[in-house]
Amino acid sequence: MSVEPVLDRIDSTLSDSLDRLKAFLRIPSISTDPAFSTDCELAADWLVSDLRSMGIEAEKRPTPGHPMVVGHIDGPGPHLLFYGHYDVQPVDPLDLWDNDPFDPQVEDTPKGQVLRGRGAADDKGQLMTFVEACRAWIAEHGSLPCKITFFFEGEEESGSPSLVPFLRENADELKADVALICDTGLFDSRVPAITTMLRGMLQEEITITGPSRDLHSGMYGGAAINPIRVLSRIIAKLHDDTGRITIPAFYDGVPDIPEDILNQWDALEFDHSTFLGDVGLSELAGEAGRSALEMLWSRPTCEVNGIGGGYQGEGFKTVLPSKASAKISFRLVGQQDPLAIRENFRQMVTELVPDDCDVAFKGHGASQASVMSIDNPAFEKARVALTEEWPDEAAFIGSGGSIPVAGYFQTMLGTESMLIGFGKDDDQIHSPNEKYDVESFHKGTRSWARILAALSSN
Amino acid sequence: MSVEPVLDRIDSTLSDSLDRLKAFLRIPSISTDPAFSTDCELAADWLVSDLRSMGIEAEKRPTPGHPMVVGHIDGPGPHLLFYGHYDVQPVDPLDLWDNDPFDPQVEDTPKGQVLRGRGAADDKGQLMTFVEACRAWIAEHGSLPCKITFFFEGEEESGSPSLVPFLRENADELKADVALICDTGLFDSRVPAITTMLRGMLQEEITITGPSRDLHSGMYGGAAINPIRVLSRIIAKLHDDTGRITIPAFYDGVPDIPEDILNQWDALEFDHSTFLGDVGLSELAGEAGRSALEMLWSRPTCEVNGIGGGYQGEGFKTVLPSKASAKISFRLVGQQDPLAIRENFRQMVTELVPDDCDVAFKGHGASQASVMSIDNPAFEKARVALTEEWPDEAAFIGSGGSIPVAGYFQTMLGTESMLIGFGKDDDQIHSPNEKYDVESFHKGTRSWARILAALSSN
Repeated sequence: MSVEPVLDRIDSTLSDSLDRLKAFLRIPSISTDPAFSTDCELAADWLVSDLRSMGIEAEKRPTPGHPMVVGHIDGPGPHLLFYGHYDVQPVDPLDLWDNDPFDPQVEDTPKGQVLRGRGAADDKGQLMTFVEACRAWIAEHGSLPCKITFFFEGEEESGSPSLVPFLRENADELKADVALICDTGLFDSRVPAITTMLRGMLQEEITITGPSRDLHSGMYGGAAINPIRVLSRIIAKLHDDTGRITIPAFYDGVPDIPEDILNQWDALEFDHSTFLGDVGLSELAGEAGRSALEMLWSRPTCEVNGIGGGYQGEGFKTVLPSKASAKISFRLVGQQDPLAIRENFRQMVTELVPDDCDVAFKGHGASQASVMSIDNPAFEKARVALTEEWPDEAAFIGSGGSIPVAGYFQTMLGTESMLIGFGKDDDQIHSPNEKYDVESFHKGTRSWARILAALSSN
Repeated sequence: MSVEPVLDRIDSTLSDSLDRLKAFLRIPSISTDPAFSTDCELAADWLVSDLRSMGIEAEKRPTPGHPMVVGHIDGPGPHLLFYGHYDVQPVDPLDLWDNDPFDPQVEDTPKGQVLRGRGAADDKGQLMTFVEACRAWIAEHGSLPCKITFFFEGEEESGSPSLVPFLRENADELKADVALICDTGLFDSRVPAITTMLRGMLQEEITITGPSRDLHSGMYGGAAINPIRVLSRIIAKLHDDTGRITIPAFYDGVPDIPEDILNQWDALEFDHSTFLGDVGLSELAGEAGRSALEMLWSRPTCEVNGIGGGYQGEGFKTVLPSKASAKISFRLVGQQDPLAIRENFRQMVTELVPDDCDVAFKGHGASQASVMSIDNPAFEKARVALTEEWPDEAAFIGSGGSIPVAGYFQTMLGTESMLIGFGKDDDQIHSPNEKYDVESFHKGTRSWARILAALSSN
């Protein structure tokens, strides 16, 4: 089965492929907000129906949360497990979107055509590159060159609560020779990448309560404790002046990156001025003395993702609030233990809270970092196939993001993951005006066709 | 004109007086939110109509913001200027109210009957104690014992932007022998009070902007600056470990309170454990080594009234936000200069903002503290009249709140103000479930009848 006619078909049917993706993007499958539960079901149904239309045995599989979609199709080559997620991030602040986030449109921009809408890049557009590559293979050759299991999740943006139980119960069905995950990016517009290091994640929400009700700051101010002030002091103490995180034992398990890997990263000539300049910044804000790629790929972080307390409306209200809260997340690397860090974080915060205040913790996601073993020859085959499609040679890179599923595939299925994606730094995922380059979608689909061919060859 | 039949009439018509107050409270005259502009007009109209029904020449007077209400009625005694405000605080968080804040109801509680609703105590209920006392005088005697100018404002809860220009333009019409302001509290349920020291107020809103848009914390976390972290560090630096405010020259103009006044305050035997215990607290959170009454009446404060940034919805969103903002207010005392403090605050904050972030300031209200001269014999007459109505002797006290109008009356009209009110510490003004004790309303109305009699006597 030759790949050339498959590539031609992908080129000639691009417009149909984009129309299908737009239909998929119109479903507002925001997993973190219960108001959109039905839409998550609809997105799963859409995928089942699309896979079935290609002759794939697919079904929606219930979980206590949003459903999984699992599909199987046989083929002569190795057994591949493909993973993507059909859920998307919330869209607020809605007023910063130029258009309805769920009415996707192709736009011409100075950098080429983009498809704009929530989920265009993360992860519906990426997921569909693989589905479209399979569709073209089947249309051209009547079958696929590999045996493939499709596995789509609907809770990736809300901490994947059902993923581990589902993998445990369905391990035999899902385990494969290698897993393919399409939820990462190109290194840059010329250099495709296979991500082999992923940061882990720990999410904590803390709420400080002082007075039992909101108070008048004239009547109580100066005598009563202010929980916003308490919370601000805690946040200010999470980093020292050099940018290091101050939680006890936080850096346990953070590896030193070997000299040769650091040299490889230096050779990529990553331009942090452009990377930061694109978002209006100029200076690296992480640990003193580290390069940008070290900060992003190999060092842990502590970020405040949200804070709120007191009066936030128009005008002024001289209230001394009862409560203040913050959402704080950590990106983890190497062997850092998320549960130990959670415990140490909570203990540190508790010690910083004055006697007259209470603190409540709510844990969200917790996952370790993953480091893939690239000894599996599939990695090099895929790297060569990617290099054929793109201008420059493909690279093995790290990623600042967290894709816990790769770690679970490793530990629960014994299946190594190849993380291959076509996102760009300016895709604005998780932000207003998210987009996916039409080139990413088109060449991404072509890349998967080439990778299927490469993996099925001896 | 004897006060006794007036007091009897107040007793026998209490139910009608409460009904009128309830009608007034049903108008949601929230001045700080433009959505309620029409309601502010309606509240002003209601007052004009009520004053006219008593034979007072009253009219609504336009301003660039919400209108003033001015009314005049002649009488044999001294000329009194009565001030109150018809606007109320916003009601959020609405879910913490047990009932509709604008459907006031009389409730039986273990401490007696209360009228619950937004504005019941601040300031519609208080304002109406004076109006009802005048109504009873006129009904009983056909006229009032003093010449009275009524002056009602609709922007007190939003920084009174129109007040100074209005006073400047109408100084001749408004100036009087003494001003009466009903917007303060009893010292406790047995001890009525005339407030002679009021804290001033400075309100500042600051917004820190880092990246030009919200970022994905996996993609940028560790390299890009987080404005919530910057804001938290600034807030944490506004106080030192002893509770002192660290803004340069902040304490310039803060007087030492004379020993004899401190002794008077000690004699009031203020129980800070009960005061704080009522709101779920136990420890004084202000400057180390100061008493509660010093903290509340004679020391300046810096409070964060609101903070917001990033994702605050349900669940988790690993965003690295573009902006974070806080509303910060200062209560000022003695000769502290709000404009100098604003400048020093802004300079300090600007110096704490890293080069890669911008800070924007929005100034809201700014007013100096007021200290009344109690040499005017009206003060002692009113104190004796109050003592006749209440169980224990009336006191001259300070107040932690800010009522800038008293300072403007002093400087712009040359009129000294007597601040007499009947609020209680547990009225929950500016908070959900605001209430006013029916006893405060009833004995407050009787108190004003006695004060009118006392001030008209030689």
